[in-house]
Amino acid sequence: MREPEEGAGERTGEQERVARAALTRVIEPGDEHGGRWLREFGAAELLARLTAPDPDDTALPGATPRRIASYRIRAAAADPHRDLAAVAAVGGRFICPGDREWPTQLDDLGGARPIGLWVRGRPDLRTWALRSVAVVGARACTPYGAHMAAGLGTGLAERGWVVVSGAAFGVDGSAHRGALAAGGATVAVLACGVDVVYPRGHAELIGRIAQQGLVIGELPPGDHPTPSRFILRNRVIAALTRGTVVVEAEYRSGSLVTARSAQRLGRHTMGVPGPVTSGLSAGVHELLRGEGVLVTDADEVVELVGDIGELAPERRGPVLPRDLLDRVSTRVLDAIPARGAVDAGRIARGAGTTPDETLGRLYELHSLGFVERHGEGWELTRSAIRGSNARRGGP
Amino acid sequence: MREPEEGAGERTGEQERVARAALTRVIEPGDEHGGRWLREFGAAELLARLTAPDPDDTALPGATPRRIASYRIRAAAADPHRDLAAVAAVGGRFICPGDREWPTQLDDLGGARPIGLWVRGRPDLRTWALRSVAVVGARACTPYGAHMAAGLGTGLAERGWVVVSGAAFGVDGSAHRGALAAGGATVAVLACGVDVVYPRGHAELIGRIAQQGLVIGELPPGDHPTPSRFILRNRVIAALTRGTVVVEAEYRSGSLVTARSAQRLGRHTMGVPGPVTSGLSAGVHELLRGEGVLVTDADEVVELVGDIGELAPERRGPVLPRDLLDRVSTRVLDAIPARGAVDAGRIARGAGTTPDETLGRLYELHSLGFVERHGEGWELTRSAIRGSNARRGGP
Repeated sequence: MREPEEGAGERTGEQERVARAALTRVIEPGDEHGGRWLREFGAAELLARLTAPDPDDTALPGATPRRIASYRIRAAAADPHRDLAAVAAVGGRFICPGDREWPTQLDDLGGARPIGLWVRGRPDLRTWALRSVAVVGARACTPYGAHMAAGLGTGLAERGWVVVSGAAFGVDGSAHRGALAAGGATVAVLACGVDVVYPRGHAELIGRIAQQGLVIGELPPGDHPTPSRFILRNRVIAALTRGTVVVEAEYRSGSLVTARSAQRLGRHTMGVPGPVTSGLSAGVHELLRGEGVLVTDADEVVELVGDIGELAPERRGPVLPRDLLDRVSTRVLDAIPARGAVDAGRIARGAGTTPDETLGRLYELHSLGFVERHGEGWELTRSAIRGSNARRGGP
Repeated sequence: MREPEEGAGERTGEQERVARAALTRVIEPGDEHGGRWLREFGAAELLARLTAPDPDDTALPGATPRRIASYRIRAAAADPHRDLAAVAAVGGRFICPGDREWPTQLDDLGGARPIGLWVRGRPDLRTWALRSVAVVGARACTPYGAHMAAGLGTGLAERGWVVVSGAAFGVDGSAHRGALAAGGATVAVLACGVDVVYPRGHAELIGRIAQQGLVIGELPPGDHPTPSRFILRNRVIAALTRGTVVVEAEYRSGSLVTARSAQRLGRHTMGVPGPVTSGLSAGVHELLRGEGVLVTDADEVVELVGDIGELAPERRGPVLPRDLLDRVSTRVLDAIPARGAVDAGRIARGAGTTPDETLGRLYELHSLGFVERHGEGWELTRSAIRGSNARRGGP
């Protein structure tokens, strides 16, 4: 066995990034063999071993020859440049560990960390994830579950939090819609390619999320969901967010898998109670009898997940110096008056950007501690005003 | 100020008992002055000071002359022998600290311990209280709340637990009825005299509880409820039981007062969740966001309150030697075969007692660890069988 290259997994060079993009077609989410090889050899080297013209099974230790053969078949078929072009065609990109946009929370997954993420939408995933909460639950939810999920989506968005969910029917869809309805930020984590619409009935919803928010996933363009991909997708939702709220779930449901992943990762797990007589609340109540915290509205969620103190704007101020912001974000920030709140439309006009672009930037600036949201209005945080005054030589 | 008599408060002599009965007419539940004097002087001495023909205010320290005068007026009007006769006329009695039947859990109330309790019904309060759970909640409950309360009442009764509540409309009534419907044991703690029917609409229910269970309270015969008496009654419910389950409660409701008393007394506090959209579940959810444990059925309640280990028959065996049981309980115990479960009707025939009397005794024997209940049937615990064999010289 050759020596592993030092820090190979964290290189962000173009060769490594393209190799990681290729490997998303070769290694399934949660595949232990593939994950170990990746950590051991790095992406480019692993891809080279898988596609070597002169196959050497000893170069891929721990798997049966038959298994190695199936990896080789997939590797031979992989065409990362085509995939990167396909995702670019729908306004997307591929990000991987070491990238500036990589959400480092995902590193908490250890060996189960995604190889990379395919991302559709303008906003910066890393900053959005900093102030995000997952809202998940039953596909076949009751009107009560849909009502609670939409209310949480709206309430979290109004308080400047990013709503993460799985774009499924039922609770997921209601949570996304609630956030969108409030002109808020939302991220859909798919169990398929980000250019694949699943479920079909959510074509319009997923399109709107890609416009106003982010659609992300581990699977390469064109790939379809499978039962195991759904289950493994849940760990990404859990790891990405500060906490997971379960709204209606039967015993042993996928939402509880997300909640338990969140628990193991040290994230907050929360549940919305319902009638004991409803089987769709039984899973939530089971969670609440364990480590889960009972929540009844967005305020109670924010009280819990905002508790970490990290990045709370009033206490710590911006986490980035203003001068490190990019050009567009700086223009958006400059379009907010020193005093009082203004709506996103007015900020967009002042900054000379589109409303969707502006909203994405505002959520980033919120995550970074520069702005706060109050209902429909956005205003500078006190520390952002101080920073601005200092820069301008003001008091 | 005279020296307090040593241990005066715990004397069980006839003079002291009659004086305590009289004082339930003079000192309101929760009255701090009266409670302090009682602890300091003992009941007979306090009554003597209150009814002295030559009034001496310095003998009653800490209260204004006007206040003392009002105590004296009530003390002069008290006629404990008439009250004791009145309660005896409805099949009742008066018990006080130091009595064999006194539930010593009430001593956890410290200075707020009741002066004594007026009791209607055959069963022994002390042994019943050992395995009891309070089920309380909103008067104006929803059909959901009534359903859950009745289900808990039935489920707890079927598992051999005594259901304690306040005989009010709504949740209380449903809990009592659920226990009665299962042929189970239930205790109504009233905020009025035990011969007073309140609420009037529960005349038949309270009558059935007095027949099949126990109706108890701090107030002397004929006394009516007041708002403060309702609130102070709740501390008795909390202290008497191993835990309190709240089924539907609005913010700041009386049921939450009971739950908080239970918490302060180190008892288990539990709540049955409901729809967040129902104001009648808001108080319960508040409780569950604090120290309260979410429960959805009787099994979960028993799992929690039975956890203390104390008296769990399988582990510890009977707490009383069989020879200390009274004549009727011994007959009931002897009517149960060494193997297998039988219903209460057959035991009653074997013991030559009435079905109600038998059921009361069975719950006592259950509390004492001699018998277990399985659905409709009663059977001897393993340790009761061992004790019996040993006594009979068997294996």
